[in-house]
Amino acid sequence: MHHYYPRLLLDVARCRRNIDRMNTKARLHNLHFRPHFKTHQSQTVGQWFREGGIDRITVSSLKMADYFARAGWTDIFVAFPVNLLEMDEIDRLAREIKLSVSIESAFVAEKLAGHLKNNTGVYIKIDTGYHRTGLEPSDLDEIKRILQVIGLSRHLYFKGFYTHSGHTYRASGKPEIERIHADSRAQLSELRNSFLNDFPDLILSVGDTPSCSLVSDFTGLDEIRPGNFVFYDLMQYQLGACSLDDIAVVLECPVVAKNKKRNELLIHGGAVHLSKESIEFHGTEIFGLVVSLEDNESRIPWPDTAVVSLSQEHGIIRTNQAGFDAVQIGDTIGVIPVHSCLTANLAAYFLATSGELISKMRS
Amino acid sequence: MHHYYPRLLLDVARCRRNIDRMNTKARLHNLHFRPHFKTHQSQTVGQWFREGGIDRITVSSLKMADYFARAGWTDIFVAFPVNLLEMDEIDRLAREIKLSVSIESAFVAEKLAGHLKNNTGVYIKIDTGYHRTGLEPSDLDEIKRILQVIGLSRHLYFKGFYTHSGHTYRASGKPEIERIHADSRAQLSELRNSFLNDFPDLILSVGDTPSCSLVSDFTGLDEIRPGNFVFYDLMQYQLGACSLDDIAVVLECPVVAKNKKRNELLIHGGAVHLSKESIEFHGTEIFGLVVSLEDNESRIPWPDTAVVSLSQEHGIIRTNQAGFDAVQIGDTIGVIPVHSCLTANLAAYFLATSGELISKMRS
Repeated sequence: MHHYYPRLLLDVARCRRNIDRMNTKARLHNLHFRPHFKTHQSQTVGQWFREGGIDRITVSSLKMADYFARAGWTDIFVAFPVNLLEMDEIDRLAREIKLSVSIESAFVAEKLAGHLKNNTGVYIKIDTGYHRTGLEPSDLDEIKRILQVIGLSRHLYFKGFYTHSGHTYRASGKPEIERIHADSRAQLSELRNSFLNDFPDLILSVGDTPSCSLVSDFTGLDEIRPGNFVFYDLMQYQLGACSLDDIAVVLECPVVAKNKKRNELLIHGGAVHLSKESIEFHGTEIFGLVVSLEDNESRIPWPDTAVVSLSQEHGIIRTNQAGFDAVQIGDTIGVIPVHSCLTANLAAYFLATSGELISKMRS
Repeated sequence: MHHYYPRLLLDVARCRRNIDRMNTKARLHNLHFRPHFKTHQSQTVGQWFREGGIDRITVSSLKMADYFARAGWTDIFVAFPVNLLEMDEIDRLAREIKLSVSIESAFVAEKLAGHLKNNTGVYIKIDTGYHRTGLEPSDLDEIKRILQVIGLSRHLYFKGFYTHSGHTYRASGKPEIERIHADSRAQLSELRNSFLNDFPDLILSVGDTPSCSLVSDFTGLDEIRPGNFVFYDLMQYQLGACSLDDIAVVLECPVVAKNKKRNELLIHGGAVHLSKESIEFHGTEIFGLVVSLEDNESRIPWPDTAVVSLSQEHGIIRTNQAGFDAVQIGDTIGVIPVHSCLTANLAAYFLATSGELISKMRS
């Protein structure tokens, strides 16, 4: 098999260090670690978690749950609202493994209760401020209705409340992330107090990588489900959730043309490799930063240099004179992605620094 | 095999009508039709072109050229600057089919000339105003140097000049698209006049879907290479390049939650299905418009309704009261994509309205 460019390079040592660090942090805080596998989507990378003693995971689709169940994972939470059209597949998978699903309405709870023939855990999704999905913690009526349906059903059992504080991604830095996290924690804790009598074992679960990386107070929480930290990326770096040295993936792109007038390098590396996700960096919208690949270990971006435009297969890097002169057509350079979840999703496989191919789920 | 949601529905009748229409237009204007296959990336869809008498195609990567060569295409132009790291693959493919590549520097021409052992056509890329890549038409010195290298090489032969007037995508409407097209045409024609003595058979080739769909004056041009028209999308609709009724793909998304307070529907359909491409539509940034799927033929979007936010797997549709009341959790709705090239690239396959699976190249 010929390996076409561009290729997503995975620094295994960095990746395993990220896993170890989060695993250690979870243990230190007496938290169950249920990592989200949507970022890497790879059974091989999953194995590195297992070697750290992890035995429960989070995924974002039933397809992904299937993929990891086939690799021997037996405790999987699909942290995405149940699709009623996939109830048969949920039931089939719940027969094979300890499956948990996400519910946020009595309507869905009733449909599931009427359909499933195998025990299935239920997390109730709580919106603590991100406003993407979930019940507001004040909506005790609907929560009670859901718990009532679960109580009457033969196969559904209640696990607890979970939230994804995705608004940390819009935060200005660590203080705001800590504030959001503390606020989510307080809302969940209050909710637990309301239901502790009936459900003394209910757990509280949080998920976002910025909080899990940065905060140190997890009082009252039982479980964390971060995902992105396995690779990290520019978004996380910008939030202060990681250092550049923690970023484990880099897209290797061939330089295919140079424009002297505009100090631009054209690379094979476009929206179908990096995704169209961008961030504002020093006042400019960028789609990636640039590193050299001769020294595999470097994550020091070239100064005054960024991917400033993407079309389907083309990427344009704007640089300074030194950057322009440093590369020839036919060289490859590395692009640190803005959002590694989307970039990794677009890759057919990862190429380890050792040269080994690391397979992953195909879209 | 179970088909997970969301699924990209392909209306075969609409798609074939788009193909027929562009094919007829090319014939009417005495143009070679060399369609770009980067949008559909499917051997099956390619076959529909072949049934229309098409025997030459354009692709955007060597990997894609390989994929279509395996389906019997024998005249393929890779309209992307040569990656010098793939010269062996270029040479291998050039032994099997009539392959053409894109060159925009004497440096690359020399490397290729020194390496290839099989005849390979060369298009020189001209930048007529998009400023992504290509030589300025005034850069006669570099063009002459390239032609000199080609002239001295044993296996390279000159085909002609090509441009991609991608700046039509930023145009305000038909008049500006016509102006851009006329301007590109004039620049290419002038260039031909400079080289006609030495190369009486050189061709002029243009490519963007907005121009090819909208303009009616192709005087002096020999070849068109549009790609997106096979499916069209919201971007093309907004430019006036197609009607809503021409759009051939729709993402079928299950509604998994509803938020009454915000009049929002949560769908399974995120950045890994639609891509993060957005457009400004009536003053709002949107990621898709919404249609009903009961009537398979409808391309009439719901009023006051759009996909307003995407994360990895989640999409949020904001709608009005009627839209909110019209759907239940467990229904599916259709999302017309902003940019069908990127949405189709993310699909593992297309699902024809007949229920047939249409396979495509995997990333």
